[in-house]
Amino acid sequence: MAREAKYDVLFDQVPVGPKTLRNRFWQVPHCNGAGSDKPGMQAEFRGIKAEGGWAAVFTEICLMTPDSDPLPWVGSRIWDNGDIRNLALMCEKVQAHGSLAGVELTHGGGLNHNAETRLPARGASQIPSDISAANCRAMSVREIRQIQREHVDAALRARAAGFDLLTLFCGLANITNFFMYPFYNKRTDSYGGSFQNRLRFTKEVLEMMREVIDDCAIGIRMPIDTLDEPYGYGDAGFRAEHDAPEYIETLDPLVDYWDLNVGTLNWGEDAGSSRFFATNHQADYTRIAKQHTAKPCVNVGRFTDPDVMVEAITSGQCDVIGAARPSISDPYLPRKIEEGRLDDIRECIGCNVCVSRWEIGGPPIWCTQNPTSGEEYRRGWHPEHYTPASNRDTAILVVGAGPAGLEAAMVLGKRGYEAVHVVDGHKRMGGHVSWVSTMPGFSAWRRVIDWRETQINKLDNVQFVGSSRLSTSDIVNYGAEHVIIATGSVWAADGMNGPMHEPITGADASQPHVCTPEQVVVDGKELGRRVLVVDHDNYYMGSAMAQLAAEKDCDVTYVTHWDSLGEYLRFTLEEQRMWQRLTELGVEVLSQHLTLSVEGGVGSLLHLWSGRERAVDFDSVILVTQRNSVCDIYDELHTDDDRLADAGIASIHLIGDAHTPGMIAQSVFSGHRLAREFDSPDPSVALPFIRERRLVGGTDDDYTLASVSIRP
Amino acid sequence: MAREAKYDVLFDQVPVGPKTLRNRFWQVPHCNGAGSDKPGMQAEFRGIKAEGGWAAVFTEICLMTPDSDPLPWVGSRIWDNGDIRNLALMCEKVQAHGSLAGVELTHGGGLNHNAETRLPARGASQIPSDISAANCRAMSVREIRQIQREHVDAALRARAAGFDLLTLFCGLANITNFFMYPFYNKRTDSYGGSFQNRLRFTKEVLEMMREVIDDCAIGIRMPIDTLDEPYGYGDAGFRAEHDAPEYIETLDPLVDYWDLNVGTLNWGEDAGSSRFFATNHQADYTRIAKQHTAKPCVNVGRFTDPDVMVEAITSGQCDVIGAARPSISDPYLPRKIEEGRLDDIRECIGCNVCVSRWEIGGPPIWCTQNPTSGEEYRRGWHPEHYTPASNRDTAILVVGAGPAGLEAAMVLGKRGYEAVHVVDGHKRMGGHVSWVSTMPGFSAWRRVIDWRETQINKLDNVQFVGSSRLSTSDIVNYGAEHVIIATGSVWAADGMNGPMHEPITGADASQPHVCTPEQVVVDGKELGRRVLVVDHDNYYMGSAMAQLAAEKDCDVTYVTHWDSLGEYLRFTLEEQRMWQRLTELGVEVLSQHLTLSVEGGVGSLLHLWSGRERAVDFDSVILVTQRNSVCDIYDELHTDDDRLADAGIASIHLIGDAHTPGMIAQSVFSGHRLAREFDSPDPSVALPFIRERRLVGGTDDDYTLASVSIRP
Repeated sequence: MAREAKYDVLFDQVPVGPKTLRNRFWQVPHCNGAGSDKPGMQAEFRGIKAEGGWAAVFTEICLMTPDSDPLPWVGSRIWDNGDIRNLALMCEKVQAHGSLAGVELTHGGGLNHNAETRLPARGASQIPSDISAANCRAMSVREIRQIQREHVDAALRARAAGFDLLTLFCGLANITNFFMYPFYNKRTDSYGGSFQNRLRFTKEVLEMMREVIDDCAIGIRMPIDTLDEPYGYGDAGFRAEHDAPEYIETLDPLVDYWDLNVGTLNWGEDAGSSRFFATNHQADYTRIAKQHTAKPCVNVGRFTDPDVMVEAITSGQCDVIGAARPSISDPYLPRKIEEGRLDDIRECIGCNVCVSRWEIGGPPIWCTQNPTSGEEYRRGWHPEHYTPASNRDTAILVVGAGPAGLEAAMVLGKRGYEAVHVVDGHKRMGGHVSWVSTMPGFSAWRRVIDWRETQINKLDNVQFVGSSRLSTSDIVNYGAEHVIIATGSVWAADGMNGPMHEPITGADASQPHVCTPEQVVVDGKELGRRVLVVDHDNYYMGSAMAQLAAEKDCDVTYVTHWDSLGEYLRFTLEEQRMWQRLTELGVEVLSQHLTLSVEGGVGSLLHLWSGRERAVDFDSVILVTQRNSVCDIYDELHTDDDRLADAGIASIHLIGDAHTPGMIAQSVFSGHRLAREFDSPDPSVALPFIRERRLVGGTDDDYTLASVSIRP
Repeated sequence: MAREAKYDVLFDQVPVGPKTLRNRFWQVPHCNGAGSDKPGMQAEFRGIKAEGGWAAVFTEICLMTPDSDPLPWVGSRIWDNGDIRNLALMCEKVQAHGSLAGVELTHGGGLNHNAETRLPARGASQIPSDISAANCRAMSVREIRQIQREHVDAALRARAAGFDLLTLFCGLANITNFFMYPFYNKRTDSYGGSFQNRLRFTKEVLEMMREVIDDCAIGIRMPIDTLDEPYGYGDAGFRAEHDAPEYIETLDPLVDYWDLNVGTLNWGEDAGSSRFFATNHQADYTRIAKQHTAKPCVNVGRFTDPDVMVEAITSGQCDVIGAARPSISDPYLPRKIEEGRLDDIRECIGCNVCVSRWEIGGPPIWCTQNPTSGEEYRRGWHPEHYTPASNRDTAILVVGAGPAGLEAAMVLGKRGYEAVHVVDGHKRMGGHVSWVSTMPGFSAWRRVIDWRETQINKLDNVQFVGSSRLSTSDIVNYGAEHVIIATGSVWAADGMNGPMHEPITGADASQPHVCTPEQVVVDGKELGRRVLVVDHDNYYMGSAMAQLAAEKDCDVTYVTHWDSLGEYLRFTLEEQRMWQRLTELGVEVLSQHLTLSVEGGVGSLLHLWSGRERAVDFDSVILVTQRNSVCDIYDELHTDDDRLADAGIASIHLIGDAHTPGMIAQSVFSGHRLAREFDSPDPSVALPFIRERRLVGGTDDDYTLASVSIRP
């Protein structure tokens, strides 16, 4: 299939300094947990994006010097020869597909704890970071010159690694911003005060880089607006209207491209979750840049729709389509547009689970939509290619058509299994995502189901059987040789919860005034005027229930033992927006509280740290305390080997929430892994992966299980 | 010098199963950030402890299977051949000194997010963890047998690595506890309910291990009591009086030693900070064990005093002195007792900075007292040995006798520099630690100064000059060839702070009702009846000020923008105890609030997330907002190269809080590093260290800076 002509503009070549982009798709810098210490993971992760059509593919933040050590957050590093070697592999893999390799040269100034290198930090003024307690020295002019030289040395090392595009990162917490923004810069010398004084540091660095590098494109990545309070720095920051024109015009002769976004360290305003931000939400700010430069401008905006991309280009908003999250969700996004395979695009749902893994500090990337993300090298998974299974002459029954079951069925189908049936009690595919995606703000999450439904519908060997709730006997007699149980989980009806490990006294969802989330959303159970939401989950459901009840004009009190609205919303950068939404809706938030009982219309609360008690009157209570796996069928089948053997069932597996309730990303991964490894000796046990560690006395990183074993 | 006879008992040999301890010193398992992926760091860190006299030296938690992956917390792993190779290096280094190498075999069950391996977790019952939202599957009996076999396989791999002591970890969140404690175990089958049922899992694992391993000692590490609520699990846990006798007597035939402590995942009750717990605070619980076993019993208790150790042995409390923190602070603790060098013992101050680095997740260990901790391999620093400096024929002036200055002077002295003067305006050494250690609970912190004072007094080439505040001219004319500025920092008098990056309106500590911590503690500035403490710092000072004011019978309101009492107290495991202390003292805690102004006796506060405003009346306000470096002398000298040259000053350096205000551990490190590298080409720039990463196309991990550099 060929692409539609209206998308041709997306595939124009774009000159960028001494280099040329082969099309208008640009994977902006974003983290993946690989850094430069997992060179294989980094190289394959980025290389496959180039293969998928991204004309520019960047590293994440790449730290320039050892006193910019963000551990436990994992950036890449370009400190020495070893880093050059490791990142050169990424450059090779990207360039092998005709794409340009880019590096985001970063120095975090006073943001860094330097937890590993233990060096003191350098910055513009001595004030602790706004998000941590890290501080820095206010550099003298001599020290400024030194760090500028270190910037140039780092750029030269990046060039030596083979990078085509050298981005000087001027976003988030970066030494250049510590000078540029009045919020950070309180200096009274020639590097503080006036606009041009505050810009001096960046300008000098660029001049010094230009002086020695002429064979790479050099550009800037920056927020064109640092937004109003309470989301940004207000007048103490950088504003698109007042500051951007002078900034861009001053530096334009020194750069080959501009990579633009908005926001501050409070970066959920940039990487906005789909619950709070529409596609291309930054356009009104970023479009200003092109009025002041003829250099290529890159914009981001969670672009997944080629029509929106074309509009962004043809309307003069930008020249190049930048993407982080959409490129994670679908590394082949450009290629699918080019090949006219729009319905194959696996669209980012904007859940920010990718972001959350960075925010936690340490873990590798996870993506809800793309379970192969981060696994390209270590598990050898390609997002588009599936090895034909060696045992594919068989029939597989998947019980449950939620994220885990659908993913497993789809991958089994693509691996060529003869017959795969996905059976569900509901008429349509989707599992819990079907109703979750009807809650206010969650509609984009529906894409998890839609994409898999589309893919499965294209596979002749996979069949969905709806409206069919299978009993244990039904499964035994189904005729399948392998059975996969993916029956999901349900919210606890008794208030059982993590912090107390006991049901909550009085919590019984068979009573009219006590509800589970399913009862509220699916069954439409009626809520009284005063609603108490008890949240011992750590993610979105508790606050979503509070929002939902408040939007029905209930008086809502929201209680959680976490510091905030479920700790995970901080990791997905949704905490501030969610809290503000609840505030606007008049919800009272009581964090750091346990709920001891919900009896007689009174919730008895206990402050976690002070031990102070508190009572809240309610008419209805919603229990968001924990989920219970629906795994009785599996447990029953699993205990009776003879019955399985008699029925010709060779194996039975448990995946997704039915094994352990978790995030959608975990369910999808669980189904994907099982299906990828379904022809391994025991597919219920995960195969080893490459760990990319230093090994004593050897060069290989083998994961072969030890030859020792239990003596017979 | 020989040891005193009264300490002989500490050096008795102790048989432990098929092995023999060469004395009674046992480094219990504790983390250091090395895991099995930084084999050099792990091996040297542990090996030096063996060299220092610890007869048993353990790993940290060592994870047995890939579904026990605690990332971002760094444990070691014994999953495969690679891990065997890497940990074998540690065994070699430990055994080279006649000590026994131990491993803490751990499976975290449902505590694990398995962030890297992405596998679902297995546990006893399906309830989220009490400290995270991770959950697990409630295993079937068949699955229990499987995980038990995996325990044995892991033990065999540990034996293959060369470990002598195999500890089955039954503390914190461990699969064995998920079965043992009613708090976790809600099963109704033969693995739940009665005491013996709940013990079954552990007993079977030990039996299976015994069946195949007879040449290693096998033991258990466990809390003998999980404490009362709110610190522990109360009746739902494990109690020394009721449960321990039956537990120990049941398992005693299967184990060779008992390693005992107290507590739960809320492990600040075990690793108690010196602010809240005395040495040997667990004795009343742990001493019960020896009534029920003749096997060697190990106890911990922040033991640093040999008299206390002897009393613990001779009183029948325990047989072996266990230590984590004291062995970090002084790896040579046993040897110094043995050699009668008691005044050389660098005693742990119980600040829990070591613990905090684990709690953050990811970073390597830091120790306030021992800056070489974790640097034995990567920076090549030995805690007791110092390379004679190549340029030692010179005179060095250290200005400031706080932690950084003292550490630098001491190390320079030990490296043989001809003349080192430490000059301070105060009569005694100590810097800010002098007054901080007078605050309620902080007396042990004084050891930072005391130990360095003792060491410096032994060095003929180092001289302390007190009561002498040097001006810039004094320094220039002092006659030193090198000058080190270590003049510390002072608390801001204007409320400048991290979250707002502006002074607080009305905050002016020159006014009688506005105070800095120094004014309160050092100057004795008077406080009014109602005191507002504004804490934008993230560590101890804010809550310590609240405590101090409340103990003076003030009505105290404590305000911070953090979720709690300064986020770092959570990392040092002091948050709960501190919050409870403030509650007992009647302090009102307002977290998640900014202080916009302190004018006219009113503090105007803003809730960080909801934006709601609030006013607090006060008579005095204490500003704990940020510290400012005292570096004017350095800045002045640093700008005038000619003046320095004329005075014969070859170099000038800035260390500790005078460079960047931080924790004491950072100041000590800063002074140590400078002195260790004082004969490098530019000692102000840190030398590279070994990064222990996988390198593309090579086996070595070189840190040589790239040959590229700025073109001339």
